[in-house]
Amino acid sequence: MNEVADATGFAELWSSLADVGRDAGTGGYRRYAWTAADRVCRDWFASQATDRGLTVETDRNGNQWAWWLPDSRASSSYSQNTLAIGSHLDSVPDGGAYDGPLGVISAFAAVDLLKARGWQPSRLIAIANFADEEGARFGVACSGSRLMTGQLDPARARELRDGDGIRLADAMEAAGQDPDALGRDEERLTGISEFVELHIEQGRGLIEREAAVGVATSVWPHGRWRFDFDGEANHAGTTALDDRRDPMLTYAHTVLSARKKARLGGALATFGKLRVEPNGTNAIPSRVQAWLDGRAPDEETLGAVVEEIAAAARERAQRDGTSVSVVGESRTGSVEFDHALRDRLAGTLAETFGSAPLLPTGAGHDAGILAAELPTAMLFVRNPTGLSHTPAEHAQTADCLTGVAALAEVVARLAGEQATGK
Amino acid sequence: MNEVADATGFAELWSSLADVGRDAGTGGYRRYAWTAADRVCRDWFASQATDRGLTVETDRNGNQWAWWLPDSRASSSYSQNTLAIGSHLDSVPDGGAYDGPLGVISAFAAVDLLKARGWQPSRLIAIANFADEEGARFGVACSGSRLMTGQLDPARARELRDGDGIRLADAMEAAGQDPDALGRDEERLTGISEFVELHIEQGRGLIEREAAVGVATSVWPHGRWRFDFDGEANHAGTTALDDRRDPMLTYAHTVLSARKKARLGGALATFGKLRVEPNGTNAIPSRVQAWLDGRAPDEETLGAVVEEIAAAARERAQRDGTSVSVVGESRTGSVEFDHALRDRLAGTLAETFGSAPLLPTGAGHDAGILAAELPTAMLFVRNPTGLSHTPAEHAQTADCLTGVAALAEVVARLAGEQATGK
Repeated sequence: MNEVADATGFAELWSSLADVGRDAGTGGYRRYAWTAADRVCRDWFASQATDRGLTVETDRNGNQWAWWLPDSRASSSYSQNTLAIGSHLDSVPDGGAYDGPLGVISAFAAVDLLKARGWQPSRLIAIANFADEEGARFGVACSGSRLMTGQLDPARARELRDGDGIRLADAMEAAGQDPDALGRDEERLTGISEFVELHIEQGRGLIEREAAVGVATSVWPHGRWRFDFDGEANHAGTTALDDRRDPMLTYAHTVLSARKKARLGGALATFGKLRVEPNGTNAIPSRVQAWLDGRAPDEETLGAVVEEIAAAARERAQRDGTSVSVVGESRTGSVEFDHALRDRLAGTLAETFGSAPLLPTGAGHDAGILAAELPTAMLFVRNPTGLSHTPAEHAQTADCLTGVAALAEVVARLAGEQATGK
Repeated sequence: MNEVADATGFAELWSSLADVGRDAGTGGYRRYAWTAADRVCRDWFASQATDRGLTVETDRNGNQWAWWLPDSRASSSYSQNTLAIGSHLDSVPDGGAYDGPLGVISAFAAVDLLKARGWQPSRLIAIANFADEEGARFGVACSGSRLMTGQLDPARARELRDGDGIRLADAMEAAGQDPDALGRDEERLTGISEFVELHIEQGRGLIEREAAVGVATSVWPHGRWRFDFDGEANHAGTTALDDRRDPMLTYAHTVLSARKKARLGGALATFGKLRVEPNGTNAIPSRVQAWLDGRAPDEETLGAVVEEIAAAARERAQRDGTSVSVVGESRTGSVEFDHALRDRLAGTLAETFGSAPLLPTGAGHDAGILAAELPTAMLFVRNPTGLSHTPAEHAQTADCLTGVAALAEVVARLAGEQATGK
């Protein structure tokens, strides 16, 4: 089985979602959980499922599921042995069109491809649209899958507030979702045997490997640390350089140190968020708060690199007459995707497309959350620029079609009888 | 004449203003133009003047004047030959108690000292409280003196808005001041022969010179430049270091370069205000906007240092794959205080206190604005920490009393008959 996906069908699917929640000014997407744009995405999902004869439901945590039942099954019971595929439809502020939607659209397109072949599933297949993966509105990423697995406490989730002070519980209720139902979904988790998430790559790993599609090995451990650089507010026009205790100098040195330590350690370190007090043009700051995003292939390297950055900051602070304190705000351990499932996907891709690079990712995903509960895997589609979380994010259509074909092949192998022998 | 000022009287004067507009949380002052706190400061000024038999008026630009008339004069006409002293009562956000008020309080205390001696002026003396020197509310510093001299266009001033969108004209009107009367005050400017402003020093120049009081030579030329560092937004967790175009790196390098170039050039350079886009923890910034405050002893040095900083930024931008553009937002030329008046003050201080260091200042003042119209001079009082524009700003009482005595001596020499021979 080696047909290509239907290019016209894919283009139609793609364009049917392309305008939803897109800002006319920036060209970026603003699809935040439980907003009007999110509602349109959900209606689109339900409509696509119904068009294909799939049965739609929304679970207690707001995740949507579209069921493809084997002929032998009469109902959409998710009690046993489901193969789940899919991703999410929400976006970061001014995000791109691919992060999330490519996985959902490819799942529908893979179903189309399999149906066009006359292929029939031998077990339950479900397409998922996970709620609020980006956490753009309420600040917690992957809250749909975290709630489903119990990694996010429902009581805490209900009290999360958006930038306007609106509670998550109230936003869900306004969208017709019962916030009191939130919580671990034992029966559903038990019923899913595997979850395979297709996603646009967010770096240039497949460019370097010259492959359209690859298989994820792991999610790097990552964390967020707040650096408080404290100095002394003073007048920028009258304070001699030697009399200053300027925390901006300590911060600047730390930014450059972080880059250097990350490079030497094979890690990633980014200062992208800052708060300066009093933030006046003619005022030496009293305080610079800066958030370090750190990622590395393993926990030990991550810890070592962050400690080196903190040490460089403290050393420079002594020279500047400032002080620095470092507070760990969050830390997520490494996620190793299921080896058996990963190897099966890699084998399928190698047979079908001739190559199947394995590569790690620095970003979190619902597949990473579910990995704690059941075998999960990810397929990455090549990103020619590596750009992510920006309107400029994109993938070539030919690569997207290869992704659809790869996903269809994976489904056929995992959930079919006749396909296993090829 | 060498009596010390009355310590008890000074302490009473000081404490009568100390609580006005002070924030209980920070201990800093929030005396912004045309607010309730400003009103209380103005009432305090009028009351202090009346208590001393001085005649109070508010000019068309909102500056207050308290007149000490020679016995031979019947009215408060300001037509000729006035010696003006004073400063301002407003503050920066969470400013200290001394920047401004020390000059006004010292003026009243100097009048007390002279009256206690039975000294009588041979010409008009006026104590000024200039409106809105700090520009904390409407963004334009020294607006009272700038309007008086015509350096600030009245039509533009009326349309200035505060952080809540309130127009300056409306704020003035609500405070009982006619905004239509704003504009150059020719008659008043003609009537003032000299202006002497006493001010707490905002650096540590007098600490180094071991003197309680000094005389200003000049205000350094200064300016404000906006640096726009542009890069490419991307995912902090998935973008390889080599694939980044991170403007935060370029900014950080520029901060350290600015410090170095300023040190080598004998100038001051400060990055104290920043805006980061999108300012997200897991986002490589697309843009960092940063404001450079630059000051130097002369225009040529200032221009050269800023150009060196811009060149360093551009060079680093090439390495980072980013770009930088530099926009000059404001530039104020050097102000040289009147040499004859300066030398006369320095001579008086040297005779009376044994030393009179001359020193420049990096900060703007009303005396710097008026210098374009008439002979002006400044007396600085030692600041033991050099701290300015912070609640921690302070001066020793003994130094403040020396300042009062110096100001009284200056007034006696400039406006008396019997004092000139000493």
